[in-house]
Amino acid sequence: MNETLSLLAERCSLRSYADKPVTDEEKELIINSAIRAPTAGNLMLYSILEVSDPEKKKRLVTTCDKQPFIAKAPLVLLFMADFQRWYDYYEFSEVDGLCRENGVEFVKPAESDLLLANCDALIAAQNAVIAAESLGIGSCYIGDIVENIEIHREMFTLPAYVFPTIMVCFGHYKENDSAKVYSPRLDKEYVCFENSYRRFTNEEFSEMWSEHDQFVCKKKNYLKNSTNFGQHTYLQKTGAAFSEEMRRSVKVALKDWCGKT
Amino acid sequence: MNETLSLLAERCSLRSYADKPVTDEEKELIINSAIRAPTAGNLMLYSILEVSDPEKKKRLVTTCDKQPFIAKAPLVLLFMADFQRWYDYYEFSEVDGLCRENGVEFVKPAESDLLLANCDALIAAQNAVIAAESLGIGSCYIGDIVENIEIHREMFTLPAYVFPTIMVCFGHYKENDSAKVYSPRLDKEYVCFENSYRRFTNEEFSEMWSEHDQFVCKKKNYLKNSTNFGQHTYLQKTGAAFSEEMRRSVKVALKDWCGKT
Repeated sequence: MNETLSLLAERCSLRSYADKPVTDEEKELIINSAIRAPTAGNLMLYSILEVSDPEKKKRLVTTCDKQPFIAKAPLVLLFMADFQRWYDYYEFSEVDGLCRENGVEFVKPAESDLLLANCDALIAAQNAVIAAESLGIGSCYIGDIVENIEIHREMFTLPAYVFPTIMVCFGHYKENDSAKVYSPRLDKEYVCFENSYRRFTNEEFSEMWSEHDQFVCKKKNYLKNSTNFGQHTYLQKTGAAFSEEMRRSVKVALKDWCGKT
Repeated sequence: MNETLSLLAERCSLRSYADKPVTDEEKELIINSAIRAPTAGNLMLYSILEVSDPEKKKRLVTTCDKQPFIAKAPLVLLFMADFQRWYDYYEFSEVDGLCRENGVEFVKPAESDLLLANCDALIAAQNAVIAAESLGIGSCYIGDIVENIEIHREMFTLPAYVFPTIMVCFGHYKENDSAKVYSPRLDKEYVCFENSYRRFTNEEFSEMWSEHDQFVCKKKNYLKNSTNFGQHTYLQKTGAAFSEEMRRSVKVALKDWCGKT
């Protein structure tokens, strides 16, 4: 093991931060690490937006599925898929004229371009998370930023070809480290395959999530009428209101991205 | 600066590898780091598939836009968005019965679920990349794995709710490090925003990509009839055949994922 491997092994999501700011110097190291991240064709299909305005942070608590710690995070960074910068640059470079002269279509962004730009945004985000961790600054991903696309677009003046892929809250660890919760992961045998994917048997499913089951529902305290961990998780995640809002919001964002009205 | 920050600052894509294997021990450290990556709601919405079969690696050279080094990479890992494991587990857990009893719809995966699972896959992939780098093992992302979805599904027996998000090639650095190419990145001023996104002016666009322009087209050696870096990049990337195939393939994958025929 080396310093970096230990850091990766021990990092957990941090949702409660020490009462001290992330300094400008720390922020610069975090951002620089993000910007050095690998990016598809070196096109840098992403942008990073710092949310420093306390009013906007407060609003995000509500628009991102009621997570009050967002407002208290010393540093909040939004990583966005960005094809707008390229299409504006293509306009500046008169690509439409080139296409006309050569009798080829000037194609507009499609679903695949959003997915590719999301890759860039996420790889940069994880570099930021790891850089922060190496400086004693914890972090938490907020996937809920894809909800309420109309509100987030207005808050951050995002054009159609900019999509808020993921948000990350950052802050120093508290002194006693008590906010650190080390959650279990699935065993490798359920996550890793060689040359071919395969689906699991009932015997495997009855074992697979047992550690998570104990971790999440210590006293088999399942939601509503659910009687097992699968049903509980469905109600709490896939079937929950926030997932429904994600489904609605992402459909809208995709339509706008692809120019469908 | 610390060891981890230096590593993030100096890492480049590596497409030519030393003639020595990635050992089982190294592979385990890489995979363990990936599996400790943050994941949405701790649901682990991804799987990792190692491509060790030389015939499959050879095939990937062709199906991923003619990149011969894929066949020579000592370790090839495919990171996949995976909701199949959950939906199979939901079936095992009789979630459909619970939904029927409670008069609610048993929702199937939508576009947003693919995007969320892609996040998990990418964050895990970047942990693997950084873990490898800390062991002296370089890497290169292959975004082209989203092309030819029908072929890749058959090659790796991927069901509808498993999507090949990204592939990564790994291998040790050669002794003289000559394969390391340190490519430029955009200045922070063009990537980072505070509280509000903004679009750039013509003056800014005339500066923005000048370093990349020199790096890529040293003698203004632009493709075909293009006369500037924007036009060159459009022809080489956005308007190229591989992008067209990405657009087609991802549309198919999204339709299948969302159960549309």
